[in-house]
Amino acid sequence: MEIVVSKDLLKANDTIAAANRARLSALNLNMINLLGSPGSGKTTVLEALGKVWQGSKRIGVIEGDLATSRDGERIEAIGWPATQINTGGGCHLEANMVANALESLPLDDLNLLVVENVGNLVCTASHDLGEKLRIVVLSVTEGHDKVAKYPPMFQKADVVVFNKADILEYTDFSIEQATEDALRLNPELTFFTVSARTGAGINELADFLLAQLT
Amino acid sequence: MEIVVSKDLLKANDTIAAANRARLSALNLNMINLLGSPGSGKTTVLEALGKVWQGSKRIGVIEGDLATSRDGERIEAIGWPATQINTGGGCHLEANMVANALESLPLDDLNLLVVENVGNLVCTASHDLGEKLRIVVLSVTEGHDKVAKYPPMFQKADVVVFNKADILEYTDFSIEQATEDALRLNPELTFFTVSARTGAGINELADFLLAQLT
Repeated sequence: MEIVVSKDLLKANDTIAAANRARLSALNLNMINLLGSPGSGKTTVLEALGKVWQGSKRIGVIEGDLATSRDGERIEAIGWPATQINTGGGCHLEANMVANALESLPLDDLNLLVVENVGNLVCTASHDLGEKLRIVVLSVTEGHDKVAKYPPMFQKADVVVFNKADILEYTDFSIEQATEDALRLNPELTFFTVSARTGAGINELADFLLAQLT
Repeated sequence: MEIVVSKDLLKANDTIAAANRARLSALNLNMINLLGSPGSGKTTVLEALGKVWQGSKRIGVIEGDLATSRDGERIEAIGWPATQINTGGGCHLEANMVANALESLPLDDLNLLVVENVGNLVCTASHDLGEKLRIVVLSVTEGHDKVAKYPPMFQKADVVVFNKADILEYTDFSIEQATEDALRLNPELTFFTVSARTGAGINELADFLLAQLT
């Protein structure tokens, strides 16, 4: 019984995600689904991209959190339009939440749309939101074993960003091992190593995103 | 409809959790539910406790992961009995999984039982497993804003362990702010600051756990 309900819910989600995708495609606007553990640095990566693109590109951001509007406020501080979804207890965003959030953003006036999902390396993987590209931020302080331990997230991603490279030397993280494990799950992945805090590697990520999405 | 099913499932979970608790109580054995984000250091905290207790205390460990048996193997390397639950795509452990896992541990021969939950700061909070004590491991590399952004986890915990204190100076984490935010959510919390990697602070945590639970 529960499994049937769950499958129906996922199917309903996929239908709405497809509608989001069609709507954005008609506007020639692409959406990124930005995923990762709590504290992997998703918002800080956006802030770092903001420093690169500020003035030249206008990005709309949908922020998903259980509670608080802190991340939305950080994005608005860049000067980008942001809208905050508070899920209450919900562990991931769903396509209908994003459909509603689209109503409050100036879509005609954007170069790119980013959804920052709830910090979660599990549930967020199974919900299509209508994105063109999935980016997983994995901070090097989390340990390279996380790739093999949370396979669906990496199987369904397009890009892996290894973040917090500025403190890599104080961790036991092996970028080689994480890359090898991720490619075993998904040979199509593209990788970037960055420090969102210092800005190292962010230009390369920014160039890639612009080439892919605008 | 979905909400009703979900409430029924949670109620069924709570019934099994109560049975787990009664079963362990009859054996005079207490269980810890160990929670936290992916990469917060839950297994490393157990390994550090293993160094303190090895020989003197016998701890049984139930390891929950989406995939791999890596954490179970790390616990067995300490010399403690461990059993691994692979949830497939499941984002949290449930009481019935723990009930099954109890069958494969030598319960009569243990001083304490630990369930290391799936790395997840959201879904794991809402499922009672039959534990006596809930410990949340929050690594200082995750950022102190995580407390306010993931309130249910801290509202339902008994103990917060700030981990990775050895690299605190390379982060922007404020232990004072995190403590203040957590106490606002739950005034009953007890706090420890440790480095599971170096062993700093682990003796205090170990003494507290023994006083509370054995």
